[in-house]
Amino acid sequence: MPLPDFERVKLARLQTKVKPHLDRIHEALDRLTASDIELADEIGAHIRAGRGKFFRPTLLLLSAMEDGKVPDAAVEAAAAVELVHTATLVHDDFIDDAETRRGLPAVNKKYGPATALIMGDLLYTKALQHLARLDLVRPYLLMTDAAVNMSEAEMLQVQTRYSLDVDEDTYLRIIYQKTASLIECACRIGADFLRDGEALDDVFRRFGRQTGLVFQITDDIFDYLGDPRRLGKPTGCDWAEGRITLPLIAAWRTADPEARAGLARLAESRDPMERAESWPEVQAFVQNFGGVEYAYERARVYGDEAKSALAGLEAGAQRDLLTVAVEYVINRLK
Amino acid sequence: MPLPDFERVKLARLQTKVKPHLDRIHEALDRLTASDIELADEIGAHIRAGRGKFFRPTLLLLSAMEDGKVPDAAVEAAAAVELVHTATLVHDDFIDDAETRRGLPAVNKKYGPATALIMGDLLYTKALQHLARLDLVRPYLLMTDAAVNMSEAEMLQVQTRYSLDVDEDTYLRIIYQKTASLIECACRIGADFLRDGEALDDVFRRFGRQTGLVFQITDDIFDYLGDPRRLGKPTGCDWAEGRITLPLIAAWRTADPEARAGLARLAESRDPMERAESWPEVQAFVQNFGGVEYAYERARVYGDEAKSALAGLEAGAQRDLLTVAVEYVINRLK
Repeated sequence: MPLPDFERVKLARLQTKVKPHLDRIHEALDRLTASDIELADEIGAHIRAGRGKFFRPTLLLLSAMEDGKVPDAAVEAAAAVELVHTATLVHDDFIDDAETRRGLPAVNKKYGPATALIMGDLLYTKALQHLARLDLVRPYLLMTDAAVNMSEAEMLQVQTRYSLDVDEDTYLRIIYQKTASLIECACRIGADFLRDGEALDDVFRRFGRQTGLVFQITDDIFDYLGDPRRLGKPTGCDWAEGRITLPLIAAWRTADPEARAGLARLAESRDPMERAESWPEVQAFVQNFGGVEYAYERARVYGDEAKSALAGLEAGAQRDLLTVAVEYVINRLK
Repeated sequence: MPLPDFERVKLARLQTKVKPHLDRIHEALDRLTASDIELADEIGAHIRAGRGKFFRPTLLLLSAMEDGKVPDAAVEAAAAVELVHTATLVHDDFIDDAETRRGLPAVNKKYGPATALIMGDLLYTKALQHLARLDLVRPYLLMTDAAVNMSEAEMLQVQTRYSLDVDEDTYLRIIYQKTASLIECACRIGADFLRDGEALDDVFRRFGRQTGLVFQITDDIFDYLGDPRRLGKPTGCDWAEGRITLPLIAAWRTADPEARAGLARLAESRDPMERAESWPEVQAFVQNFGGVEYAYERARVYGDEAKSALAGLEAGAQRDLLTVAVEYVINRLK
């Protein structure tokens, strides 16, 4: 029996403010993922069946909101952002050899890795084509920056995989590039539609970036603690696959030499099954040396920074809703 | 001992006209494939070591040429086109499980399939970012169209793989989307820099498209006949991997029922090794039913159409050089 997804409920409450626009994004995504090529159309339908949370488009819409209205072009740009996000998930699932995505078989498992690569390319290029065709010049530029960032992050992750030497700065670079850059991009694209967009760019840049960092650190904490809102979701995936994230980086920094030596031995394995077996010991290590507490503290700091960035906006509905959005991200941890 | 590559020599003669610009494209590609991420930088260097023929950038430069000059922005755009081409090769090699590329180990073999996927994404997004940063709005629109075309072609190829029902129209769609679209894009981007660019767009579109079709049909014929200029290059790769191309489509259409039944039995196998064993029979089938002659005839017609498109240009160096370019493509068959 599927458990209730409280996180989704909470986000949904925020999304009531932009509901009609989200429906139009759904329609745009239906259009953009449909194809006269049967196989592409079938995979497009499979992907659409696993409904996303639309966090990035929601941020874009809220950022673009002025006098309670959102321009049509912002809705189309939001669809493109969600499509790029979807494309990266298809490629990521192949890279991670994932079995499922949003409760359905991952594209790489159902259709094979080569087809997953092609489908990701198709969605990626369709999203950029959509922006180009709508003549959304600055959104297009921001999106290609985010796209380069995300690819670089994947490469950095491969390069640093299994390495206990990954330091906090490298970790921050990775999570900025892989997650925060697209969230930042969504906010800046939204703000680009505002009358004062240029002057406010830095506000939305800082807000999006810090919110994105919180988002990823939270996900990385869930992989140690379990997500209290999604009981039964397995923990330890990052460890098993060799991704060294903030809770472990922080614990490693404060651990004594003996404990370090023990962990270093476990970290030598490249076999996911074997690493999964050592997961309880790794969890205990991170627990003993306060890794999760440290990560949580950093998430709180970045969350506060996101909120203080919003001080640059006039008081009003937009500022209130964006405050709720970042609180939603921070509160995922509670 | 490597045999002399006459094809490259011939193209090189044409390229003397744009040599200084090609050198600058090399520099731009060095810059665009360098990275502060060690692994990306290393793979970038590996890819640069396998020097391409620069056919697409050459066409772009020739298309952009006016009063013997090529604008700087066209040189940068040409680098982006070559980079997109390179990205598709990295992804294609993964899709085809290729062992080598340009005499070096393919990225998927040397660094693994996941890293090849990421590297392809990185090059692709860097190319699009490059055009966006230079504010080359129409070039990136044309480029995203080509990018969608190429991804769709890959999907169509997966969908029609092994199928003897592929007809000539489907084949033409595949080769237009996978090969001709980027060549057409290169020509149209080049023409966009001309004073009369808008008026001449249709000339360059037709020229690029038809030249691209000849280019791919020629490649597909080489896979049956062998490339006389690259002795020792193996034939039968398309058959072994289940790609049904024009020589076979044409032969299949004219074959008698008995011969068809024989081929249909061979076509049932999905095992590349087993298919490779039946290659001599397939070659004989195509020979018996005039498949290569038909494909050659079509290539000649498309080549003539490319040349007649050039009648829309004023007599002069540009028209002459583009004529040589399409002749180079047609003559690869002789």
